[in-house]
Amino acid sequence: MSGPQKHSREAFLKIFPSLVEDIKQSATRYNVPQNALDWLEKSVNANTPTGKLNRGMSVPDSVSQLLGRPLSDDEFRLSATLGWLTELLQAFFLVSDDIMDGSITRRGEPCWYRQTGVGMIAINDAFMLESSIFLILKKHFRSHPAYLDLIELFHEVTWQTELGQLCDLITAPEDNVDLNNFSMDKYTFIVIYKTAYYSFYLPVALALHYLQLATPENLKQAHDILIPMGEYFQIQDDWLDAFGDPAVIGKIGTDIKDNKCGWLINQALQIVTPEQRRLLDENYGQKDDAKEAKVKELYNELNLNQRYKDYEEKRVGELRQLISKVDESSGLKQGVFETFLAKIYKRGS
Amino acid sequence: MSGPQKHSREAFLKIFPSLVEDIKQSATRYNVPQNALDWLEKSVNANTPTGKLNRGMSVPDSVSQLLGRPLSDDEFRLSATLGWLTELLQAFFLVSDDIMDGSITRRGEPCWYRQTGVGMIAINDAFMLESSIFLILKKHFRSHPAYLDLIELFHEVTWQTELGQLCDLITAPEDNVDLNNFSMDKYTFIVIYKTAYYSFYLPVALALHYLQLATPENLKQAHDILIPMGEYFQIQDDWLDAFGDPAVIGKIGTDIKDNKCGWLINQALQIVTPEQRRLLDENYGQKDDAKEAKVKELYNELNLNQRYKDYEEKRVGELRQLISKVDESSGLKQGVFETFLAKIYKRGS
Repeated sequence: MSGPQKHSREAFLKIFPSLVEDIKQSATRYNVPQNALDWLEKSVNANTPTGKLNRGMSVPDSVSQLLGRPLSDDEFRLSATLGWLTELLQAFFLVSDDIMDGSITRRGEPCWYRQTGVGMIAINDAFMLESSIFLILKKHFRSHPAYLDLIELFHEVTWQTELGQLCDLITAPEDNVDLNNFSMDKYTFIVIYKTAYYSFYLPVALALHYLQLATPENLKQAHDILIPMGEYFQIQDDWLDAFGDPAVIGKIGTDIKDNKCGWLINQALQIVTPEQRRLLDENYGQKDDAKEAKVKELYNELNLNQRYKDYEEKRVGELRQLISKVDESSGLKQGVFETFLAKIYKRGS
Repeated sequence: MSGPQKHSREAFLKIFPSLVEDIKQSATRYNVPQNALDWLEKSVNANTPTGKLNRGMSVPDSVSQLLGRPLSDDEFRLSATLGWLTELLQAFFLVSDDIMDGSITRRGEPCWYRQTGVGMIAINDAFMLESSIFLILKKHFRSHPAYLDLIELFHEVTWQTELGQLCDLITAPEDNVDLNNFSMDKYTFIVIYKTAYYSFYLPVALALHYLQLATPENLKQAHDILIPMGEYFQIQDDWLDAFGDPAVIGKIGTDIKDNKCGWLINQALQIVTPEQRRLLDENYGQKDDAKEAKVKELYNELNLNQRYKDYEEKRVGELRQLISKVDESSGLKQGVFETFLAKIYKRGS
């Protein structure tokens, strides 16, 4: 068997328990009391391997694409370990985002901070998920030539995500609805920084560093495709929130009620008449089914569904163009980006 | 003028604005919207240079002790920068601790999360204080031979502090008083990990790395003095909470009401009769002045004030012994530790 390989969720999940052992070992070597050790293990297991794992799995998949062949056991173990670090980073963000957003459920369970006995201890648990990234990096990559680059990459992407989160939090506070705060510029900033860097750029940058292919040119080529791709992914997510089938996407959208600075409202604000704008001012961002229905009705009048579909076709066309022009002479492969795009295009439709 | 130099708070404070500029620059290079940039600056200024700054100032002071002479402007700027990183780390911990503890005030002001419009956004602000450490390290120390050691030192001390905080949070939850949870072993773990590493070991380890004197032997000698010294410092803090003069220590102690797993209650638990134990079970950890007074009365009956004074004399004698045996042949200096101890001994008496 040759050619690149897609790895199964099962194979990826099998790597995780040994990483939990690494984390526990980093605590037991300090003689942590047993109750704290048990808590730590429970938090890591409840918050990390419970999502779709697309970000994490894309690291070994990208490494296989870059090598153009299936991975050895060792290559899979190490690249999946880097994949799990993206999942730990995501866990750190989600545990804390849920507190900041006052969310109720996550992945079908009560949010971690709402589970019995947890509460605000979840903040420290989030910190420990973040710290685990660097414990594991040190254990498995200390002698890798890119060790310092890997650390700095995680620091930079974390900072970028925090900047995006800050902008999101202060632009659309749930308790103070003011559509004048919104703009496509702010929207684009939030989407790129809060989501695209850690979800799209990070896994491929990790794969490149792992294979020592992370030249400035390769990183820039990856960046210039993956950031617009991540932006498209989040715009799609915003569209699914209002127009997706809850049975397919697995949740009922709440962006209108939650005063989210999303793609649809920002598109609407660009084209509304003064009268329609008054309707939005009066009905957006309120926990009221009838008001939400009025906003949705206006979205339909404004043909936002078609507007999204036009956007999607245009953006996907541009991305395909960019991908076809990727210079493969220094080890980067178009297949890396094609794989990402194939997972997203027409998702939920 | 020769010999080691103690630096003034004013000189140390003068370094901070340029670090705030570094942090802002790390955001403006991503075209952060102005409202987010203003927020970031306000959070950094409100939470970092507002404490006693003892931890931060001890870095340039230690560097001067190690060199045995006053510092050049450049040496002061760089070692004070490392000092400010310990203050950023402390700010990260305090902003989040205040949320986890439900605290009301900090340094005479409402806690950051209680200031108008902040709320749970403070969690992300805490993250950004932590991230700032690595932004500044990268900017000023990327070509320093100990750059990677400095990063790993911050990662390790952060992890140790989080372990101490976790143990503290789950051992003494304010809403579930059970003195069976307490023990001197847990107390010692919490004190060493939550306080001693970042407050005592970190500044000296930074000074050693800065001067490239951080041999394993020097780090171990520093560790083996500074960790027991940090333990003594926290025990003193616990004693001041009940026996200190509020006019001198600047706050009214609340450990008894807050169900804190402190030194006094743990000492009491070791020597009480079954009847006195019942009194503690019935009165400790409750927001009730009369119950607090009963606990304090028992502390007096048990002579805990004298017990502390005996402990202090014994511990300080041991520390002086340890300091006198420090091997100075590889560049470590006894004066580093004498300076620390002089700041603590009989503090608040």
